[in-house]
Amino acid sequence: MKEYDVIVIGGSAAGVTAAITARKYYPNKSILMIKNVKSVPIPCGIPYIFGTVGDPMKNLLPTDTMMVSNKVDVVQDEVIKINRDFKLVMTKTNESYSYQKLVLANGSVPIIPSISGIQLQNVFPIVKDAEYLQMMLEATKRANDFVIVGGGFIGVEMAEELKKMRPEARVSVVEMQSHCLQLVYDSDFCAIAEKALAEQQINLMTNETVSAITGHDHVEKVLLASGKEIPADCVILGIGCVSNTALAHEAGLKIGPAKGILVNRHMQTADANIFACGDCADKVSFFDQKPSGLKLASIATQEARIAGANLFNLRRINSGAIGIFSTFIGKKTFAAAGLTEREAQGRGYQIVMGEAEAINRHPGGMPGAEGLKVRLIFEAGSKILLGGQIYGAASGGELINVVGALISQKTTAEDIVLFQAGTHPALTASPVAYQLVNAAENALVKMTF
Amino acid sequence: MKEYDVIVIGGSAAGVTAAITARKYYPNKSILMIKNVKSVPIPCGIPYIFGTVGDPMKNLLPTDTMMVSNKVDVVQDEVIKINRDFKLVMTKTNESYSYQKLVLANGSVPIIPSISGIQLQNVFPIVKDAEYLQMMLEATKRANDFVIVGGGFIGVEMAEELKKMRPEARVSVVEMQSHCLQLVYDSDFCAIAEKALAEQQINLMTNETVSAITGHDHVEKVLLASGKEIPADCVILGIGCVSNTALAHEAGLKIGPAKGILVNRHMQTADANIFACGDCADKVSFFDQKPSGLKLASIATQEARIAGANLFNLRRINSGAIGIFSTFIGKKTFAAAGLTEREAQGRGYQIVMGEAEAINRHPGGMPGAEGLKVRLIFEAGSKILLGGQIYGAASGGELINVVGALISQKTTAEDIVLFQAGTHPALTASPVAYQLVNAAENALVKMTF
Repeated sequence: MKEYDVIVIGGSAAGVTAAITARKYYPNKSILMIKNVKSVPIPCGIPYIFGTVGDPMKNLLPTDTMMVSNKVDVVQDEVIKINRDFKLVMTKTNESYSYQKLVLANGSVPIIPSISGIQLQNVFPIVKDAEYLQMMLEATKRANDFVIVGGGFIGVEMAEELKKMRPEARVSVVEMQSHCLQLVYDSDFCAIAEKALAEQQINLMTNETVSAITGHDHVEKVLLASGKEIPADCVILGIGCVSNTALAHEAGLKIGPAKGILVNRHMQTADANIFACGDCADKVSFFDQKPSGLKLASIATQEARIAGANLFNLRRINSGAIGIFSTFIGKKTFAAAGLTEREAQGRGYQIVMGEAEAINRHPGGMPGAEGLKVRLIFEAGSKILLGGQIYGAASGGELINVVGALISQKTTAEDIVLFQAGTHPALTASPVAYQLVNAAENALVKMTF
Repeated sequence: MKEYDVIVIGGSAAGVTAAITARKYYPNKSILMIKNVKSVPIPCGIPYIFGTVGDPMKNLLPTDTMMVSNKVDVVQDEVIKINRDFKLVMTKTNESYSYQKLVLANGSVPIIPSISGIQLQNVFPIVKDAEYLQMMLEATKRANDFVIVGGGFIGVEMAEELKKMRPEARVSVVEMQSHCLQLVYDSDFCAIAEKALAEQQINLMTNETVSAITGHDHVEKVLLASGKEIPADCVILGIGCVSNTALAHEAGLKIGPAKGILVNRHMQTADANIFACGDCADKVSFFDQKPSGLKLASIATQEARIAGANLFNLRRINSGAIGIFSTFIGKKTFAAAGLTEREAQGRGYQIVMGEAEAINRHPGGMPGAEGLKVRLIFEAGSKILLGGQIYGAASGGELINVVGALISQKTTAEDIVLFQAGTHPALTASPVAYQLVNAAENALVKMTF
């Protein structure tokens, strides 16, 4: 048996960040990371393996390198049991390791719907393992009729990338909601994304659910509840994931209302010596502290910074998941932070929205000039920012972080109007037209009269 | 005599924004803008007329169009006198207009050093008038030896643009400080900019001051205090500007310690019916409320939003100038917000800095991957963010606004570490490597031990 002060289970975004943070705050502690795959893919980069990057081995998180430079030991193995009484973990290869503090960062597992034909060959869930993705990539190179189940981020990004890799192939996306990306954007933003997909000859089928997959050995068709049939020689499942809680549950740790490992605001589980962070951990919303199903690498790393710093000395508190997203569809940024209009209303907020659109350069003749639209959503009484959505130029990928930062600080419309945004002809809109400030002003005027 | 509820003097960023804001908050008031030039250039776009945009008429603020759509009358004239007793302004063309509320947004005038030869032909201050800039552009097309006096933003940007327009011309920049851009960036950031200028064969001469300009009718040489001589057939003055206060001073309004029109935190001058905003108005620093010499369009528009909303009903308070800047040198972003290390120490703060550098994509094989470096400066006791600097990819132009937003909200390092920054492979660094959060963590660790 080997002894460590800290053991981190999981080598993806949360595990890596927890280990690095633990090293920063506890320089003299011995730390071990146990990861169950050889090469850890960058999770958000997985869709881009297929068209843009071209190789799963070019989309790896440099886990091992980062652990070496942070003096963290790494083993590739799988923890199969936690003995909380003796503070031990046992692995598949029959090793055991003792810990003082344990961090569960073992992520999530893809949702596999229990429909007929799901076990057929060439039906692929997204698994965060570079070797699996290599095999999946080879299969996609031979397929001609792709059906992607789920029109969330992964589904939409995969559709674009498959079209990029194989322009002659037919790509369909089956989405049960009335719009793709509907959990993240208001309908009008979704509609813009849908237009961009249509322009790429991606066949988005909304208000549709898959009832069965058929074929002999290999998938041949996808049947929809509406009665439609889609020819398919490759099916990709992008309908989300659930927290990986089996190990924790077996060790008697509590599971929370969002079906993750229950944690307190310090990221401690029911056992004060065991922390959980990332996709495996239960989450609450920043806004109302109610259960949140958000699973994002950005939230995972934030939770890992809390868990890693808190191991031997509670110093950080989690204020809950905001949800700050971005993607790039049809060469345009779609970004969102906090609550959408629908979500905010669903939670009972009375809201006021403001919008502004302008080019991201000044004057418009500057190279790279593109439109950029900002929508902000405020609680009408306090005038506090609850959410924002951005569509357009690539700089929206950081502008959404201005929105996110303002949400995190519970900023009011008044304060946003008075923000002295830095601007430059080659980089942003003009200060007169700066979208964020004008969107806040347009909302504030409505709240004033 | 024509009667108006509101008169705005000035048609650039501050005037336009004050008029639009007044229209939003006082929909039934009559508003007149008096501007003294036909075509108002976008101020920050002026350097880019010379190389990138190519024509001053393609760098115009759409003042007249915006005023029409906001139901604001516009006259081109020059106010030569304010009669505060009768609440009248009189113009060069002998018109007079009455006001209930007056907004002074008549900007700044370039500093013209009183040195021998300054009146020679082809010595150009930067004047915010498109017709003047047209004449200046024609002259630069015939010149071969440019000397730019002043290595601030305007000087450095002009140098690049002149080289872009006329690659065969010789371009020198004379800067009295030991680095270009020294008022905005720490020395190591300045050094990177200097390298980029050198790579473009721009001759930056630091620790040098101009003692005289010589020539017969036209400029022929620039003499430096060090004894050096530079051949010159075109000299451009980029040594800053002073508030345009003559009209206000003549009307008996007070002038403040930063040599602008003195205003209170509501942007009212010594006369409660007269407001001032933008370059003509005196400013205080956000950090210590001491006089601030900052003159930026972003601050001007912020002050205009305060002045315009406060005209008949005080509802907004100015918390002082933060100073959020960006520029683009050698195709790299140089951006800064708040205080530099030197400034912070000069004001007596005990500071701790943190830095992080990473590529702005994940994985690095994504298109557009470039480095992006962030430095954050915190007050050591409160751990509140005082400043930040960014170098690298174009997305830094909005990332500096995340820094600016966090400064404006007096955010601590702890809160920045826990920021759930939105990330995407095609748009930003990975959440593990996100520069802003890691820079804060690196500073926080130093403040913890």
